[in-house]
Amino acid sequence: MAFEEILQITRAAKAAAREAANLRTPQKDAVLKRAAEHLIASQPRILEENQKDLGAAEAKGLSKAMLDRLTLNEKRVAEMAQGLREIVDLPDPVGQVVKGWTRPNGLRVEKVRIPLGVIAIIYESRPNVTVDAAGLCLKSGNVVVLRGGSEAIHSNRILGEILRESLQSSGVNPDLVQVVPTTDREALKVLLEQDREVDLVIPRGGEGLMKLLREISKIPVIKHDKGVCHIFVDYNADLDRAEKIVLNAKVQRPGVCNALETLLVDRKAAHAFLPRMAAELQRMGVELRGDPATRAIVPQAAAATEADWDAEYLDLILAVKVVEGLDEALAHIERHGSLHTESILTNDEAHAERFLREVNASAVLVNASTRFNDGGQLGLGAEIGISTTKLHAFGPMGLEELTTQKYVVRGDGQVRE
Amino acid sequence: MAFEEILQITRAAKAAAREAANLRTPQKDAVLKRAAEHLIASQPRILEENQKDLGAAEAKGLSKAMLDRLTLNEKRVAEMAQGLREIVDLPDPVGQVVKGWTRPNGLRVEKVRIPLGVIAIIYESRPNVTVDAAGLCLKSGNVVVLRGGSEAIHSNRILGEILRESLQSSGVNPDLVQVVPTTDREALKVLLEQDREVDLVIPRGGEGLMKLLREISKIPVIKHDKGVCHIFVDYNADLDRAEKIVLNAKVQRPGVCNALETLLVDRKAAHAFLPRMAAELQRMGVELRGDPATRAIVPQAAAATEADWDAEYLDLILAVKVVEGLDEALAHIERHGSLHTESILTNDEAHAERFLREVNASAVLVNASTRFNDGGQLGLGAEIGISTTKLHAFGPMGLEELTTQKYVVRGDGQVRE
Repeated sequence: MAFEEILQITRAAKAAAREAANLRTPQKDAVLKRAAEHLIASQPRILEENQKDLGAAEAKGLSKAMLDRLTLNEKRVAEMAQGLREIVDLPDPVGQVVKGWTRPNGLRVEKVRIPLGVIAIIYESRPNVTVDAAGLCLKSGNVVVLRGGSEAIHSNRILGEILRESLQSSGVNPDLVQVVPTTDREALKVLLEQDREVDLVIPRGGEGLMKLLREISKIPVIKHDKGVCHIFVDYNADLDRAEKIVLNAKVQRPGVCNALETLLVDRKAAHAFLPRMAAELQRMGVELRGDPATRAIVPQAAAATEADWDAEYLDLILAVKVVEGLDEALAHIERHGSLHTESILTNDEAHAERFLREVNASAVLVNASTRFNDGGQLGLGAEIGISTTKLHAFGPMGLEELTTQKYVVRGDGQVRE
Repeated sequence: MAFEEILQITRAAKAAAREAANLRTPQKDAVLKRAAEHLIASQPRILEENQKDLGAAEAKGLSKAMLDRLTLNEKRVAEMAQGLREIVDLPDPVGQVVKGWTRPNGLRVEKVRIPLGVIAIIYESRPNVTVDAAGLCLKSGNVVVLRGGSEAIHSNRILGEILRESLQSSGVNPDLVQVVPTTDREALKVLLEQDREVDLVIPRGGEGLMKLLREISKIPVIKHDKGVCHIFVDYNADLDRAEKIVLNAKVQRPGVCNALETLLVDRKAAHAFLPRMAAELQRMGVELRGDPATRAIVPQAAAATEADWDAEYLDLILAVKVVEGLDEALAHIERHGSLHTESILTNDEAHAERFLREVNASAVLVNASTRFNDGGQLGLGAEIGISTTKLHAFGPMGLEELTTQKYVVRGDGQVRE
């Protein structure tokens, strides 16, 4: 794709940013509702295009899991439409007065939420991201530039068209949604250099994408990166509860970033806890990789290597380590954690508070599954992903996190002394 | 300076980050007070080192304004100490619960302020930034890496030593303050690649520095960039008030980023306003550069070129343009503004509200001087600068803006369905 075509997209996006920022809530909600209807009505067009992607993916020999992520059907189209309707129900963050105060000289100062401007989303196979991201960016007053993966190119193009048609038929500039119609790497590089037009890049993808962004993006990036999530079972944890939580965190959906990857167990609890936990995990098909102290108690565990402590398996594999207590657990997490999600299971309140305060992660939990670090589960409504970048937004990014704040100052002639 | 020495600094900084984050408020305040005392007591050492910088600067033939910015004396040392004491009085942001709620399943969710981690400040000649930045980073629980300009290297080194001595004698790890002891460009490049150790770069400097950062920094950057600030005098503005505000914004301190650079005047007010305003500005030594409509009314103004509309003069020069009304003013600011500070002078409330809503800048004002876009003036207490990056913090950055937020979740055994 020509350099010039990417510039056309980013310029059109930038030119539409003021209109996006100034849309009123009812206008945005009307577009979201219309897009939901239009998706349902356009299901035959969507599935036809999706078939092209699926055919190509099968010919390429993609894994069954990949094919599943790529597949659209009646139920999934309905879910995308439902996702848009749920965004209608969320409060519009734009224009919210976050706080305000009056200065001694009478100036009235307010911090007011405003859109970021133009947001580029770089993502991989799942086509529903196209619709979710566009809906969240619209409601938060942003223009979105969508650049999905090559496997889903036909699906993403048709979804983008439907969204643009929905804007147009609602009397709103269709340029609020831009779909990059190519997955060419050179085109991506050109996109990542347009820092005058694009305010933020949100990548959702693997390490290759992160490395590329780190090296070439001139635009600020909020990473939605890997999760090497830990649970620490403290000396006096309730072991029945711990068993349920560890099982949930590892097994309920192992392929996601907030799933458990390493279990840390206080030595004082290890003999009572590890045999029953290991039996339960193995019954669910989980492969265990333990340190020597774990293997002394659970001989069926394989030997963990140094690499296991940094691994994001995204699979039915669990690293297990026996630690001497809270300090060693904190040190292990500091060294191997990925700033994502960390949980302590304990009945020692001082330990719980110290863990919550000292652990550096976007979400820290006590006596709950790591799987709760999710916008929907934490009560933000929809989310665009989970940021592991500490700047701007750390953790699930919902509508508020897609905005920034400006100072609005009302005076009656004040000058500075 | 060797590659290895920069790595030693950033590794020591990273290693100290957990300690910095966990300092309690009284410990931080004790260090700030001790550092204030220690600065006063160390005045002879400070002035002696400052003399070395001044001697070198004179030999290099630096301008009088530059020499003034570089000079330390009894009054300025006392001001630095006072600055630290004022930070003692500001609330500690770390641990503040920004908001909290309970989910239907009983999970208690809180958003809690946490430090960013390690912050590198890249700045130019004024040595007081060394002390201000270190004080703000300490109170907000961050480790600071200070990299000042070559002109102030001796002053910055001694100030850094005094700060580290103050930490040490308070029983706190001196590594919380790191001064890069060289101004070598290669060393700066090495620093900007250490994204595993440094969480944020805050540059305060000119376009050369911004370009370097844009090209080579692997670390997220919050720019403290130029201000091309406008005042729009609306058709029905109170002209007496407008005269005072424009004068204040342009003349009170022309060399700073929130000073006025371009005056926009509604054609309906131009004949009544421009002659008196021009006379007053010229009396204060301001050179005027006008568009043809301005020059038709104020013939003594020079002809503005296209470049004048984008100029940050930082000097007694003002670009002046007559516009057809609010729409043209908004369009001009959208094209030439720098996201910094914009003000409208009007008695039309609908115009005021539209300007406040639609102008994209870190601070928008009505009927007040642009000079109020400043942490102290807006009531944030001290500031580390004014961000023109929309991400994370937009506008003056005080203690809160040097933190991020994490989710703290307390449960009693919840698992995800």
